[in-house]
This record gives sequence, structure tokens and C-alpha cells, in this order.
Amino acid sequence: MNCESINDIDTPALLIDLDQVEKNLQQMQQKADRCGVTLRPHIKTHKIPELALKQVQLGARGITASKVSEAEVMARAGIGDIFIANQVVAFQKLKRLLALSRKINVAIGLDSIAGAHRLSETFSAAGATVEYLIEINSGLNRCGVSPGREAIELVQAIESLPGLAFKGIFTHAGQVYGKTSLAEVQKVSQFESQTMSEIARDLQDLGYQAQTVSVGSTPTMKVWEGWSGVNEIRPGNYIFNDAIQIALQVAKPEDCALTVLSTVVSRPASDRAVIDAGSKVLALDKGGHGVETAKGYGMVVGRKIVIDRLSEEHGIMAVDPGEPLAVGDCIRIIPNHACPVVNLFGSAYGIRDNAVETVFKIAARGMVQ
Amino acid sequence: MNCESINDIDTPALLIDLDQVEKNLQQMQQKADRCGVTLRPHIKTHKIPELALKQVQLGARGITASKVSEAEVMARAGIGDIFIANQVVAFQKLKRLLALSRKINVAIGLDSIAGAHRLSETFSAAGATVEYLIEINSGLNRCGVSPGREAIELVQAIESLPGLAFKGIFTHAGQVYGKTSLAEVQKVSQFESQTMSEIARDLQDLGYQAQTVSVGSTPTMKVWEGWSGVNEIRPGNYIFNDAIQIALQVAKPEDCALTVLSTVVSRPASDRAVIDAGSKVLALDKGGHGVETAKGYGMVVGRKIVIDRLSEEHGIMAVDPGEPLAVGDCIRIIPNHACPVVNLFGSAYGIRDNAVETVFKIAARGMVQ
Repeated sequence: MNCESINDIDTPALLIDLDQVEKNLQQMQQKADRCGVTLRPHIKTHKIPELALKQVQLGARGITASKVSEAEVMARAGIGDIFIANQVVAFQKLKRLLALSRKINVAIGLDSIAGAHRLSETFSAAGATVEYLIEINSGLNRCGVSPGREAIELVQAIESLPGLAFKGIFTHAGQVYGKTSLAEVQKVSQFESQTMSEIARDLQDLGYQAQTVSVGSTPTMKVWEGWSGVNEIRPGNYIFNDAIQIALQVAKPEDCALTVLSTVVSRPASDRAVIDAGSKVLALDKGGHGVETAKGYGMVVGRKIVIDRLSEEHGIMAVDPGEPLAVGDCIRIIPNHACPVVNLFGSAYGIRDNAVETVFKIAARGMVQ
Repeated sequence: MNCESINDIDTPALLIDLDQVEKNLQQMQQKADRCGVTLRPHIKTHKIPELALKQVQLGARGITASKVSEAEVMARAGIGDIFIANQVVAFQKLKRLLALSRKINVAIGLDSIAGAHRLSETFSAAGATVEYLIEINSGLNRCGVSPGREAIELVQAIESLPGLAFKGIFTHAGQVYGKTSLAEVQKVSQFESQTMSEIARDLQDLGYQAQTVSVGSTPTMKVWEGWSGVNEIRPGNYIFNDAIQIALQVAKPEDCALTVLSTVVSRPASDRAVIDAGSKVLALDKGGHGVETAKGYGMVVGRKIVIDRLSEEHGIMAVDPGEPLAVGDCIRIIPNHACPVVNLFGSAYGIRDNAVETVFKIAARGMVQ
């Protein structure tokens, strides 16, 4: 991987535009500061410790992770405050969570009595305590208790369990990825924050103080301008942006910091070109959470070409017969969904003005357990 | 990863049923032997050197790989004969191919004059020669020259280039994954072989002896019973089988050797259960080459549950309110498409009768370049 210019790089390769990353990070941090809330970015998008440290250096309070294993990687790199925004129920993972909690500040999600019992059992047996946030279903219909009575009853039921400390509530209104207009995105964003501030108020009326009221996805945070009662935001994708964010109208192509560099390997017909980027690097996402919003399998930078089909190792593009695209030519592609694409690479090139400045190891990629 | 029983394994985890693998490998080898052809299995399905060595030990002539990087991993493990069934045009890869060709027998695909010039340049400059197979488009419309005149003209045009030796022709009739009945699968299988034997005959009439005439995908080979003029088959998926093969009626659930072990992490509503296997381990494939043939995102073993939606870390299942499925319960899932799933894991458990016999490192996973 000794490359000075992107022209020396073998393909397919992952390129990160460092100037654009810094711009994207600063914009979201400024919004958090302006709204007086904590930014706790989700690092599942980049999975790179150096970029997590950069987020903290710019003002992020800590980070969000999907997995205990991701959190372990980030803790080893020096991140001291991590929220695992997920349900962790396997005892193998709970033991790792306990070990991690002895080294850094860690909090975990909860949405069931059964999950709470397992967490309590693990921590109380070790004489330890872990902070938890109740996950609220604000419309994605994935995990999370329903807002209202169900949320309150869960907090009450968990209260007496040893080893657990109530820290607050969190949600992810991922259904926003199924929307098709900016107005609809704004509506979801408003609903997400309103739902959470209402629950926090109801809990407070009963004597339960939610220290953290946390919302966020990149689309809902891009249109957000603060909401009374919400005090933490957790966007992740904003560091790179991608074609799905463009489809949702919350980013423009020039806001995208992550591209896949790919080579034309075959031009078997005048109206067809085949590149060396298939589903093994571009992934098959056409939208978030199973909803299709993007056209094709990524946006080809600077050209009006649609990537029609993907095999594992090939991208098949319908092209105009006159399109100047020969075997050996390189193109750059903005992925539909940046997060799974990063997970498919072992490393990424950090570039500035087409020069390679650094090579990042994607240290938290492939953390399946 | 010190586990004796599958009950000790943290999830999500990849399980390989060793008895079933051996059965699947033997069946295909027996078919190749019966038909008097060479079996050259595609290792992109398993990406595990030990399993490639097993295939060779059972009678495979050598293996097929997608990438130079995959071939390097397999060569290091002791595989001495590898066909890279792909177009390789980047000079970085061609140099690695040259180095590899000095250690083992290697052959490469070609479908363009431009590609041939690059290959010839690299090998002739080093005083070396590489064997190539012309890729024929037998209906997938991906890479490959059209059968007939185009194929012959390419062989003729390449003939004078130094450093290249004509070895034969190959194809992959991947369009079979878009079929919906066994009769249609059989028709594609017949067309694939017929097309190739006709080109081989036409080439022979002009004095070009195709030493290798190679066909294959798992579906077309499952229904194959030999074809005059074809002398090599390259199925890959048959080692494991998967839900897409089941949808094509060329495999049954009991033929599937690869499963993903997953834990229920949330049961947020009576009609919904959420597991810890999302697109980060199950992938989003619903069929081959962009065609949807499978229902949901994998088959839950022994239960009639559909995995409706995948987020990166979550599988969301609609379940009957009475379904006995609690937080902490484990299920096993036959993936829709085994190959990309293997690529998402770092290791796999080799099991026999639910006991862990070995842990495989997936040494050729993530070989993007």
C-alpha cells in the first residue's frame, strides 16, 4: 500500500477525502453546540479509531457503538466514554461489557425485563454497576418499548434490580430512510424529538430523572434545529454522507467524503461496461432498513452512468455507446450506503487533492459478535 | 473461541456442518468422475484453505478463484493449480499474477484485446508465459465475448502476442439464478454446455485446440449429466448450498451445510422478534445477480418464521404471538447466499452433531483487490 497518488492505487479501493470529512465533522459539531446538546457520533459508519478520536477532539462528548466488540476497539485507541446503542443479552458479551466498564465509562441499551435480568445478574455478581438507557420505539418498529406507559413500566420494573443505574432514554427513528421528501424527513425528525421529550417529562413527573435524552440519525439531525428536552444527538453517517442521504435530499454529491475507486475490466458490448467493484465492496443496499430510495448501486462521480447490476466481483453498467470508458480506465463511486461498504474493506486511503496522505486501518470492521 | 458445544458459542456465528460438507463434496466429485470431466471447484464460496485442500484430496484437479489475492492465499496453503476466472487488467495485480505463476500452475481469463495487451506486456517483459482462457458470454451478459465469430476473432487477434498461451474457453451461465423452475434450470444448463462445445469445435476447425472447455455454476451442474466437448466444471456453492439453491429446487434444506447461529435480543411486541443477525452477517442478497428468488433474508431452521427486514445489526421477524421465542433464545439460519455471508466472518466453527470439532480461519475473506 505504498501509494503517493490515487493513480497508483490498486482497485477496488476505499478513498476518504480528508478535507470533506473535516468539513462534515465541524458542521455537525457546530449544530450540536448551537443547539446546546451533546454530540455522541455513531462510529459504525467509519469504524476507524483515528476518526473517532478526531470527533472527540472536535467536541464530541464520547461515541456511540453497535457492539461490545466495536467499543473494545475504540476503548483500546483511547476513547473513554462509549454508549452501546443496542440490546446485549448473550452472557459472553455481558462479561466483556463488565470488563470494559472497569476501564472506561460505558452505558448500554435495554428494552426488556429479560435483558435487564441478564445485565443485572452479570454486574451485581461482580459488585459492579452499569448505566443503562431505555430504548424507545419512535416508529422504526425494530427494538424498543412503545412510548408512554410501556416505557414507564419498564423503568419501574427494572428499578429494584441490583447492578443497574438508570441514565436515560434513547431512540433511532430509522424509518426516516423510507421517506421521499425533505418535508417528510422534517416530520420524522420532529416526531422523534417530541416523543422523547414527552417520555422524559412523564418519567420526571414520577421521579425518574433521565439524565440523557438521546435521539438521532443523520437525516433527522441534518434538518434538526434543537428541541427542548432532548440533550444528546447520535448521527453517524454524516461523517461521509452517501447516495442514500442524497436521495433523501439531506446531502449533495459534493458533501460525500467516501468513494470507491474502481477499474473497468471489460467492455464486452458497446452499451455495457463492467467494473471490478461488485457487491463484495459496494454492498447491495438501495436504501436504509429495506426501503429502496437510491437508483442503481452507487453514484458514479462526474458521469451519468447507472450501475445496473452487481455480482460479487463485478458491477455491470449500461452505458451510451459513445461513452469514453475503456478497459483499464478508473472511476470513482459514491456508495449507496457508506457504513456496510466500510465494513467490507480492511483499510482506506485518506486523500487530500488526490494525493494519499495516510492509510487508515479499519480496526473495527467485521466485528460480528 | 474455546467452545465445545454450539451452546457455548457467542452469536452471531458461522457454523459449518462437516458431515454435510463431506457429503456435498463427494456427490459433485462423483458426478465429475461419472461424466469423465475435471472438477475445478470455485473456492469463493468457502474461502477456507483447509476446505480447498479437502476438495483436491477428494479428486478436484485444482481450484477456481475470483481474484489474484484469493489465489495467493490458496497457493500459500499448498494448492498448486489455480484458474482465476476473471478479467485482471490492473498492472499491480498483473505483477502479482506473474509472481504467482512462478510458484504454481495458474491460468487467467481474457475477454478483450486491451486486456490481452496488458497481460502480454507484463509476462513477455519478464520472459514468462501465462495460459489464458477466453471468457464466453453464454447469456449472463456480464463479461465475455459473444459466442461465434467474436470469440474466434479474439483468439486470432491474441495469437501473435508474446507471453500468452491459449488454453481454452470458459463460461458461467449465471442467468440461471433468475429462473423459477427446474425445467428452466435444465434448459440453461444445456444451453451453457452446447454453446461451449460448438465454439470449441469451430476453433478446432481453424486449428485452435481448446485444451479446456469449462462450464459451471452450482445450479447448472446439479442438473448436468455430461456433454460431449465439455471437459471441466466449476461449481462453487455446492459445498454448502443455500436458500437460493433451495428456491431454484436444486437443493433441499437438509443439503445445506452452512448456517448462521443467532440470538433473539428483543421481543418488543407479541408479533415481532429481533435477532442479532443483520445485513452485516446475512448480507442482503435475495437471489443471484440481482434477481429475487428467496423469500425473506434467510431460512430459519425448523421454524416457519420469515426474516422480514434487516438493519446492519438486526434481523426483524414477524412471528405468531404464540411462537415460543424469548430473549436469549438461539436460532439457526440458512443464508440466502452462502458466499457473501462467509466473506463477512473472520472465522467459522466446523461442527459435527452439534459439537465443535474445529475453528476455521476464513483466510481468503475480504480479498477486495
